[in-house]
Amino acid sequence: MQLLEDRIRKDGIVREGNVLKVDSFLNHQIDVGLLEELGKEFARLYDGCGVNKILTIEASGIGIACITAQQFGCPVVFAKKSKTTNLPDDVWTTKVESFTHRNVADVLVAKAFLTEKDRVLIIDDFLANGAALTGLIEIVKAAGATLVGAGIVIEKAFQPGGRLIREQGVRVESLARIKSMDPQKGIEFC
Amino acid sequence: MQLLEDRIRKDGIVREGNVLKVDSFLNHQIDVGLLEELGKEFARLYDGCGVNKILTIEASGIGIACITAQQFGCPVVFAKKSKTTNLPDDVWTTKVESFTHRNVADVLVAKAFLTEKDRVLIIDDFLANGAALTGLIEIVKAAGATLVGAGIVIEKAFQPGGRLIREQGVRVESLARIKSMDPQKGIEFC
Repeated sequence: MQLLEDRIRKDGIVREGNVLKVDSFLNHQIDVGLLEELGKEFARLYDGCGVNKILTIEASGIGIACITAQQFGCPVVFAKKSKTTNLPDDVWTTKVESFTHRNVADVLVAKAFLTEKDRVLIIDDFLANGAALTGLIEIVKAAGATLVGAGIVIEKAFQPGGRLIREQGVRVESLARIKSMDPQKGIEFC
Repeated sequence: MQLLEDRIRKDGIVREGNVLKVDSFLNHQIDVGLLEELGKEFARLYDGCGVNKILTIEASGIGIACITAQQFGCPVVFAKKSKTTNLPDDVWTTKVESFTHRNVADVLVAKAFLTEKDRVLIIDDFLANGAALTGLIEIVKAAGATLVGAGIVIEKAFQPGGRLIREQGVRVESLARIKSMDPQKGIEFC
């Protein structure tokens, strides 16, 4: 998606260790107008697929998921990363390793909000090693829901997550796919 | 706001210990159509105030903040609850005690995304003891930004946060204010 690639080139900052900072427009400060364009693109890609629920994971997926859900006219469910006193006992759960936070978190979705009636589009900001997406797919399967596919804003295509998940037969649509990036040489898209 | 009070009466669940579960429509599963109505109401209340930035705190404030920001045509900044490897060193920070999670978290906003040019509307899902809102207000003041006010979805008016913050001269608009609630007797609004 040209608009997104242009924005990443303009405002993204590449750091050592395969870190791409997009926190001026995507995951700390959020350009809501940009999210609207991303949401429209996800709606175009998954048009006619009967999506009736958007699933994401806290925190940075939530804004994108909500604005994408406006396009589909469906609710969002966001998976929570640790057990709070307000969460019901009756949850689907898996463990997800975070690249950013360098830890492993329990990820939970209340069973009431994800059932076999749901046709689920998973939305997230990044796909790199695929840990979060794999966890969300496990939860969709555990719930007996139908996985329509995944909509990712930025895929680090030089890391294995996207390939591994597509090889499982899951449709993954990434709006920007980074072939390589380097603090000196900049970003090359696929 | 009648629409919201009706929804809380219909789908909210009161538990012992002053817990109100609204996770079927507000902070786990999200009814995005409802959020659009809440966003319009915040826009009506703060019309003409020159709001040019929405500030919230992860995770459950993000969806409401993004959809409210569509009304104002401005970006969202969400405060992060712990230091990640992707956050810049140059941050405004404060400590916030969480009622839900029963812990104290460092809350951070990158200095680049909150400056003296900003006229800030703080958005959050709940106001009870006021810990999160107080922390966000401290960050706005530290940044030298102008605090226009706060927009809260549900205020537990029987807890002291709303009173304490209004006494500081901060405008707080809560779309539903709960006077009392009880697992047996149900919910009474102000």
